[in-house]
Amino acid sequence: MTVAIKYLIMLPTLIELQRLKRLERTGWTLRGLPNGTESVAAHSFGVSVTAMLLADEIKSRGLDVDIERVLKMALLHDWAETRVGDMPKTATSYFGADARKTAETAALADIVGGVGAAESQYKGLYQDYEQRQSLEARLVKAADIIDLLIQAFALERAGAKGLDEFWQVAHEADFQLPSIAHDVVGEVLQSLLEARSMIK
Amino acid sequence: MTVAIKYLIMLPTLIELQRLKRLERTGWTLRGLPNGTESVAAHSFGVSVTAMLLADEIKSRGLDVDIERVLKMALLHDWAETRVGDMPKTATSYFGADARKTAETAALADIVGGVGAAESQYKGLYQDYEQRQSLEARLVKAADIIDLLIQAFALERAGAKGLDEFWQVAHEADFQLPSIAHDVVGEVLQSLLEARSMIK
Amino acid sequence: MTVAIKYLIMLPTLIELQRLKRLERTGWTLRGLPNGTESVAAHSFGVSVTAMLLADEIKSRGLDVDIERVLKMALLHDWAETRVGDMPKTATSYFGADARKTAETAALADIVGGVGAAESQYKGLYQDYEQRQSLEARLVKAADIIDLLIQAFALERAGAKGLDEFWQVAHEADFQLPSIAHDVVGEVLQSLLEARSMIK
Amino acid sequence: MTVAIKYLIMLPTLIELQRLKRLERTGWTLRGLPNGTESVAAHSFGVSVTAMLLADEIKSRGLDVDIERVLKMALLHDWAETRVGDMPKTATSYFGADARKTAETAALADIVGGVGAAESQYKGLYQDYEQRQSLEARLVKAADIIDLLIQAFALERAGAKGLDEFWQVAHEADFQLPSIAHDVVGEVLQSLLEARSMIK
Amino acid sequence: MTVAIKYLIMLPTLIELQRLKRLERTGWTLRGLPNGTESVAAHSFGVSVTAMLLADEIKSRGLDVDIERVLKMALLHDWAETRVGDMPKTATSYFGADARKTAETAALADIVGGVGAAESQYKGLYQDYEQRQSLEARLVKAADIIDLLIQAFALERAGAKGLDEFWQVAHEADFQLPSIAHDVVGEVLQSLLEARSMIK
Amino acid sequence: MTVAIKYLIMLPTLIELQRLKRLERTGWTLRGLPNGTESVAAHSFGVSVTAMLLADEIKSRGLDVDIERVLKMALLHDWAETRVGDMPKTATSYFGADARKTAETAALADIVGGVGAAESQYKGLYQDYEQRQSLEARLVKAADIIDLLIQAFALERAGAKGLDEFWQVAHEADFQLPSIAHDVVGEVLQSLLEARSMIK
Repeated sequence: MTVAIKYLIMLPTLIELQRLKRLERTGWTLRGLPNGTESVAAHSFGVSVTAMLLADEIKSRGLDVDIERVLKMALLHDWAETRVGDMPKTATSYFGADARKTAETAALADIVGGVGAAESQYKGLYQDYEQRQSLEARLVKAADIIDLLIQAFALERAGAKGLDEFWQVAHEADFQLPSIAHDVVGEVLQSLLEARSMIK
Repeated sequence: MTVAIKYLIMLPTLIELQRLKRLERTGWTLRGLPNGTESVAAHSFGVSVTAMLLADEIKSRGLDVDIERVLKMALLHDWAETRVGDMPKTATSYFGADARKTAETAALADIVGGVGAAESQYKGLYQDYEQRQSLEARLVKAADIIDLLIQAFALERAGAKGLDEFWQVAHEADFQLPSIAHDVVGEVLQSLLEARSMIK
Repeated sequence: MTVAIKYLIMLPTLIELQRLKRLERTGWTLRGLPNGTESVAAHSFGVSVTAMLLADEIKSRGLDVDIERVLKMALLHDWAETRVGDMPKTATSYFGADARKTAETAALADIVGGVGAAESQYKGLYQDYEQRQSLEARLVKAADIIDLLIQAFALERAGAKGLDEFWQVAHEADFQLPSIAHDVVGEVLQSLLEARSMIK
Repeated sequence: MTVAIKYLIMLPTLIELQRLKRLERTGWTLRGLPNGTESVAAHSFGVSVTAMLLADEIKSRGLDVDIERVLKMALLHDWAETRVGDMPKTATSYFGADARKTAETAALADIVGGVGAAESQYKGLYQDYEQRQSLEARLVKAADIIDLLIQAFALERAGAKGLDEFWQVAHEADFQLPSIAHDVVGEVLQSLLEARSMIK
Repeated sequence: MTVAIKYLIMLPTLIELQRLKRLERTGWTLRGLPNGTESVAAHSFGVSVTAMLLADEIKSRGLDVDIERVLKMALLHDWAETRVGDMPKTATSYFGADARKTAETAALADIVGGVGAAESQYKGLYQDYEQRQSLEARLVKAADIIDLLIQAFALERAGAKGLDEFWQVAHEADFQLPSIAHDVVGEVLQSLLEARSMIK
Repeated sequence: MTVAIKYLIMLPTLIELQRLKRLERTGWTLRGLPNGTESVAAHSFGVSVTAMLLADEIKSRGLDVDIERVLKMALLHDWAETRVGDMPKTATSYFGADARKTAETAALADIVGGVGAAESQYKGLYQDYEQRQSLEARLVKAADIIDLLIQAFALERAGAKGLDEFWQVAHEADFQLPSIAHDVVGEVLQSLLEARSMIK
C-alpha cells in the first residue's frame, strides 16, 4: 500500500534522531565534567534558540535574513552524529577536516534518505552550512559558538574549572558577517565576556 | 551606553534557557526510569525536528504551512519550565488547566521580557500555541505527542516497561487538523504503532 | 475477603512514595548541578534526621516537644510531590502561594486516601505543617531549611559555586519558636555559617 | 563560649549524614542496575515511612507500639554506612555476622558521639535494633525488607530483570512478631506478591 | 634539570588516559542504554582480564603465548580514543577502515610520544594489534569481542533489550587462531551463548 | 562432557567481574562527588596502565622487573570488591586491617575458584600483593596510589574541592622500593605535586 510506504519513510529518521538525546557532548566529558552535562540534542536546541534570537534581532535592525532556513539549518547541523558520534575537536586533526566533512555529509545523506519530499532540501541546507557561504549558514555557526560559550559560562558559574581554552574563540572568531549581524553577534559575545569576568 | 543595554537584554534569556538542558522530563522519572533519560531541551529538539519533517511533508502535499512559525513555536513551547518546572500531568488536575496556562504564560512573558525586538512576537507565538487555533499550533501539538511516543518506543525497545498509558493518546488524539495534515500525522502514528507491535 | 481489601489499601501508597527516591530536587538542577545531587526522598530523610536531633536536644533542655508528631510531619511533608512534582521556588510566584498549598493539600489527601486507619491523622499532620501553628510544625520547617543549607554546604565544600542566594535565609529566617527551641536552631545555623566561612 | 561548644557537637553529625544521600545501595549496582537507582538515604526514608504506616495500622488494631521509638530506629538504622559503606550481603559471609555488627556498632557510636544529650539514647536504639528483641526493632526489620521488595517491584515494573533472589525472603521471612503485627506485615507482603504476579 | 625532563614525559600520558575513565562506550548509548553503562577504561579492564584468563588457560594447555605482550596490548588498544573519541561502528563505513586505522595510529603515537624508554615498544604493540598477525594480537581481539558480549549478557540479564545484533559476531567471528587457542575461545563463546539462552 | 565442564569454569568469573564496571569508588562519593566519577574497573585500568609505564621505565634504567607479574597483580588486586564492596578507608579501622585482608583473600579465592589452570597462580599473586614483599607487589601499590592522585588531580582541575587529605600520602608514602624504582616513582609523584601547584 502506498500509504504504508510513505510512513516507513519518515519514521526511521525520527527514531534514529532520538539517539542524540543521550549522546553526550564529548568536549565536556574529556575535560572531567560528569556525564549528563549536555546531550547533543540539548546543544542543538540551544543553537536553534540562539540562532532564532540572533536572527530576529538582526532582522529587526534592518538586515534581511531567511529565518526558516536559519532554524532548519540549526536543527539539522548535528544529525550526522547519530552515525559518526560526537568526535572531539582533536579528532579532526587526525582525520583531516575534509575527510570529516565528507564523512558527515555522507552520513547526513543516509539519515535523510527517504525522509520524503524534503530530502534534497535537507541535503542542500547541510551543504550550505558546511560551506558557510550564506548569511544564514554563518549565523548558525555563530550561534553554535555562542551556545557552547553560554554552556561553559553556566558550568563555570556552578563551579567548573579548566575550560579556559574554549574562551579563546570568543576573542578570535571571525564569522565574516555583514555589519548589522556582526554587531549583534559581537554584542552578545562581548556581554558574555563581561558576565564571565564577574564570576571569575 | 546603548550598546551595553542591548546585550544585557538578550543574554539573560539565553543563560536562563540553559537550565532546560538538564531539567529531567518528570514523566519518565516518576515511572522509574533513570535520570538522564531525557531533558526538556532534548525533548524540545525532538518536537522541533518532528514538526519540521511533518510541516515539510504537508507542504509538499499541497497544504500551505508557515514553517517559520511552526519551528519558532516548537522551540519555545516549553520555555516556561525554567521557572515553573516540568510539572507531571497529574499536577494539572490539582492546579486546574487554566491556572497552569495562566502561570506558564506569565512565566514565558517574564523570560522573554527584554529579549529585544522579538519580545511581543514570542508572546504571541506562545499564546497561539496555548490556544491551538492555528494550523501551526495544532501541528506543533501533534509533534509534541509524536516525539513523546517515539521516545517511549525507543525506551521500550531498550527494555523499559510500564509505559502503556502513554500509548492511549496514539489512539485517541484528535488534533483537529485539515485533511492533508491529518493524513500525514495519522500515517506517522499508525506506522509507529506497527513498529511497536513488532517489539512487544 | 476483608483481608484482601485491607492490603489493597496500604500498598498503593507505599508504591507511589517510591517515586520520591529518584525525583530530583529541582533547585540544584536549575543551578547547574548534575542530576543525582539529591532526591526528594533523600532530602526528606535529611529533614527527619535533623528534626529528630533538634527535638531531642530541645527536649533535653526542658521544653516539651511531641517527637512522634515531629517525625511523622517531617517524613510526610513532601509526599505531595509524587503528583505535583518538585516545583521550583519561582513557580510559587506564578501560581500563588495559596493555590500551591491548596493543590498540595489535595494531592496529599489523595495519596493517603485509603491508607487505612491513619488516613485522617496524616491529613491533620500535613495541615498542621502547612499552617505552622504548632511548635512541632515550626520545628520541622526549621529542619527543612537546615537540611537544605547543610546540603548546600556539602556541595560548596566539594567545589560547587553559585549557591549564595540560599544562604540569605540563614540570616533572615524567623521560625517563631519559643526561646529554648529558638536557641538550639540558632546555634546550629550560627555554627553552620562559621563552618562555611572556613571553606570560602 | 559554651554556646559555641554546643553546636560544634550537633553539626558534624548532620554534615556526615549528608553522605548517605548519594551513597548507592550496592545491591542494585552489583545486579547491573544503573547508578542513581537508590541512595542509602532514600532507602532509609522508605523504611521509615513503611514503618510508620505499619505501626499506625497495628496500633489501630489494638496492639500497643512505641511509634517514636519505631521512627527513630528506622531513621538511624543505616547511619554506620557513612563510615563502613553499604556492604553487599556477600560481605557478611566473609567478615562474619558478628564482626559486621561489632564494626557497625562502633561506627554508629563514633557518629553520634557528641551529638549532645541524645547520644546514649541513639546508641541504645541501635543496639535494640541489632538485637531484635523489642516489638519495635522487629517491626523496623520488617519495614526494611518491605521497602526493599517494593523498590524491587518498582524496578521490575519499569523493566528490570534478574532480581528473583530478593523475593525468596518474602516467602521465608519470619519476623517473630505478635499476631496482630504478624497479620499486618503478612497482608502487605501477600498483596505485594500478588501485585508482582500481575506484572510478570 | 634532566630529572625534571624525565617526569614531564610520563605524567602527561597518565593524565590524558584519565579521560577514558568517563568516556562512555558509544555503542550502548546509541541503543538507548543510560549513561554510566560502561566507560572505555572499564571495557579496557574487561578486555585485559579476559585476555589474561584466556592466555593462561591456553598456555596451560601447551601453546606458548607471550602473556606480557598480550596484557600490554589489551591495556593500550583503546588509548587513541582520548583524542579520537569512541567512534560508533557505523563511523568506520563513512571514514573508511584504513582512514580510521591511520588516524588512531597517529593519535596513539602522539599520546605515547615522550612516555620515555618504552615509546617505540608501545607503538610496535599497537601496530601489531592493528595488523592482527601475531597470536597475541588475535587473542586480544578475541578478548575484545568476548568482553563486549559478556557486558551485553549482563545488561540483558538486568532487563536490556535490542542488543541482538551484537550476538551475530559470536556465531560469525573467525579469529584465525591456532587450534588450542581456537578451542579455548570457542568454548567460552559457546558457553556464553548457552548462558544467554537460559535468560531469554 | 569435559568440554562443557571447562567453560563453566572460566565464564562465571568473567561475568562476576563485570560488576566492577559500575561499582563506584566510594571515596569520591563520600566526599560529595557525583556518581559516575570513577568505577572500580576504571581505577583498576588506571593502576594497570600506571604500573606498566613505571615498570617499563624502571626496566629501561637497568632494574629487572617481572612485568607479567606486575600487570597480572594490578589487574586482579581489586577483584574481591565484587563480593566485599569498595569499603571506605574508615571501614578498616572498625574491622581491623587483618580482618579486612582475611575477608578479601577469602573472597578472591572464591572468585577465582574454578577459573581453571591459573587458579592457584592468581591466589599466589594476590597473596604477594597483600604482603608487599616482592618488588612487583610494591610497584603495584605505588601505581595504586599514583592513579588515585592523578584522578584527584583531574577532578581538582575540573573544579572539585575538599580532596586535600588524599595528597598527604604523596608526601608520606614510603613504598620501600630499591633505588632505581624509588627514583622513578618519586619523580612521577614530584612532578604531579608541581602540576597540582599550578592549578591551585
